[in-house]
Amino acid sequence: MTRPTLDLTTPTPDTLRALYDAVDSALLDQVVPFWQRHAPDPVHGGSYNCLDQDGTVFDTTKHMWLQGRLVWMFSKLYQTIDAQADWLEQARSAITFMQTHAVRPDHRVYFALTADGSPVSLQRKIFTECFYALALSEYGKATGESAYGKAATAQLTQILDWAYDWTKVGRPKFNDQPDNRMLAVPMILLNLIEEIAGEDPAYVSEAEECIRSIALHVDTSRQLVREHVGPNGEILDGAHGRVLNPGHVIEAGWFLQHWAQRLGREELSRMALNMTRWSHDLGWDDVHGGLFYFLDADGYSPTALEWDMKLWWPHCEALYAHLLHWNLTGADEDWRRFADTWTYTMTHFPDTTHGEWFGYLNRRGEVTHRFKGGPYKGFFHVPRSLWLMRTLLEKTI
Amino acid sequence: MTRPTLDLTTPTPDTLRALYDAVDSALLDQVVPFWQRHAPDPVHGGSYNCLDQDGTVFDTTKHMWLQGRLVWMFSKLYQTIDAQADWLEQARSAITFMQTHAVRPDHRVYFALTADGSPVSLQRKIFTECFYALALSEYGKATGESAYGKAATAQLTQILDWAYDWTKVGRPKFNDQPDNRMLAVPMILLNLIEEIAGEDPAYVSEAEECIRSIALHVDTSRQLVREHVGPNGEILDGAHGRVLNPGHVIEAGWFLQHWAQRLGREELSRMALNMTRWSHDLGWDDVHGGLFYFLDADGYSPTALEWDMKLWWPHCEALYAHLLHWNLTGADEDWRRFADTWTYTMTHFPDTTHGEWFGYLNRRGEVTHRFKGGPYKGFFHVPRSLWLMRTLLEKTI
Repeated sequence: MTRPTLDLTTPTPDTLRALYDAVDSALLDQVVPFWQRHAPDPVHGGSYNCLDQDGTVFDTTKHMWLQGRLVWMFSKLYQTIDAQADWLEQARSAITFMQTHAVRPDHRVYFALTADGSPVSLQRKIFTECFYALALSEYGKATGESAYGKAATAQLTQILDWAYDWTKVGRPKFNDQPDNRMLAVPMILLNLIEEIAGEDPAYVSEAEECIRSIALHVDTSRQLVREHVGPNGEILDGAHGRVLNPGHVIEAGWFLQHWAQRLGREELSRMALNMTRWSHDLGWDDVHGGLFYFLDADGYSPTALEWDMKLWWPHCEALYAHLLHWNLTGADEDWRRFADTWTYTMTHFPDTTHGEWFGYLNRRGEVTHRFKGGPYKGFFHVPRSLWLMRTLLEKTI
Repeated sequence: MTRPTLDLTTPTPDTLRALYDAVDSALLDQVVPFWQRHAPDPVHGGSYNCLDQDGTVFDTTKHMWLQGRLVWMFSKLYQTIDAQADWLEQARSAITFMQTHAVRPDHRVYFALTADGSPVSLQRKIFTECFYALALSEYGKATGESAYGKAATAQLTQILDWAYDWTKVGRPKFNDQPDNRMLAVPMILLNLIEEIAGEDPAYVSEAEECIRSIALHVDTSRQLVREHVGPNGEILDGAHGRVLNPGHVIEAGWFLQHWAQRLGREELSRMALNMTRWSHDLGWDDVHGGLFYFLDADGYSPTALEWDMKLWWPHCEALYAHLLHWNLTGADEDWRRFADTWTYTMTHFPDTTHGEWFGYLNRRGEVTHRFKGGPYKGFFHVPRSLWLMRTLLEKTI
């Protein structure tokens, strides 16, 4: 495996064809085989996600965010690229592990379990449940077994009930505690509705509600998008109210653009484009390249220790978001953002020795963590981005 | 203010005298005035702890770990260096803020509050309560008001009840969940007992229990100390069981050495010395200098994103621990560890422009966060280390 070298100066038909080939090869030669080979647990079922550089399992803990996402991804690949029995088997094994060990009678899902299924931890958040719902939905589509689709809808309904009141998932709320909203919640709900409810018009009003919630985070006058705001979009006091996560907003940008296209809403498409452009330009490190992980809206030092690191997933999200937006606008500036992100990403993240991508670089772009999978990195952002780009390019070229 | 340049080649009496002067000046000229000037909240009482490079409050959230520690530190300085009315007033204001707003009827203490005292968060841990107990105890000693001492002892008793069963502070325990012990717990208890119970023989058996618990973390054959072990010292599976935090162990080393001296226990003194030496040598970055934040016992990449950063507090703890041990052993190797740590620390952390020390450097030693106080950095590790060194050197020179 060698690092793809592409001339992305201008998006000619030849460029796009070469890009398609590079994306296809990265997905199917570099990334998918790594997980097929190293992730399965033949003893207890399900997948390992803590995989060292060469695929060695360095921790047998199974993290359910990643188990659910792997089910979703393999099910998607099975339906759209190649009906490989092994891909469906990986999905089956992981969803069965989740259903057997991770899902509780109260519909909550453990965050982490031991290899043989003993609970290790439960988050006071709703995200593990979201990725479980995604898994149910996509595995149901892949197999055609309607019970999974029904279970996914039931889980989505449950999640919608919890979404804006986390006391329901065990988070305390104190008297006079300042209220706040997280961009992450309407964002993930919007993606869930797209994935699970599909064309079902019953969920459009829920999606509209998510869109309104996301808009509360958009500060148009300052051209930035805040991770946390008050319930009516008020700017929150302190560092918490100033947190910017450019990659996260860029991801929200393409989630939203999908809905803008589906609903045929021009102003929504503009908002999604703005979110993506602003966050890229604000988040790009002009000294060393790549996207910062966190910034402070007013230029203070972010309190997160890892703020200046370059993580794989913001770059994955940016690749697809820029390609999608360039595809819609045809604007040079969107192509340039895509090309810059591609060049940085492909020269820094892929591991040409053992396959898959590194996840964590320091500000200078040096690899700081050699593992390919960890508690928060699994078979998801890299293959999803490559699959989304492949799907889009397939229609374009 | 200029960075002190000291020739620490050999610990001659002149060297120690110069070291004392440098430590005294760092404490009283560089660090204490910064907090005196910038921390007090004249409106609501208590202290701000999120202070930008120049002392500007960049977040008015008050973090109770740091509020309690500030009370302890100012009370200590008041008693041992100079009975400055302002120092006692800072302590009084902060302990009053805690008692008025942060302490709950169930003796739990909020982790963070707004400037005017509304709760923001409560940890499912015991550390905020520990620092509150330290505050009560030391403020009581500074003022001679016995009610504070009694309240400190009551809080300590409560903490001892919670210490090894965090379900009592709201942490869930699942069926078949692997049990584990954290070095942090017996460590902080040992320090609390030293500070609060003093010479009271009633607490020696509790201290002995802490010492036994700490010993479970020490892997003598591999010369390393694990942050997490099983209830009988078993090595835990996975990355969790391999986490090393060299600075934390070095801090435990001097906590333990104080008890070894007090109890006159040779083998305990040896264990404390070994913990300190091993962790320094393992944690030192031979390429860029300084102590890593986290390591993996078996050489895998630590999962913590910030593992290779150089934080102020491990260096503060190492400074005192090495000086203490050199003072006991007279060994060249302990002096060398001290001198290396001093040189790295004093050339990297102090801010010669605005006073106080930076807290966070990347692996190369470049400042990544410009603030002087944040959610986890307050008026504590820097002044405590300087005060401990000053106290020790005072007896030596």
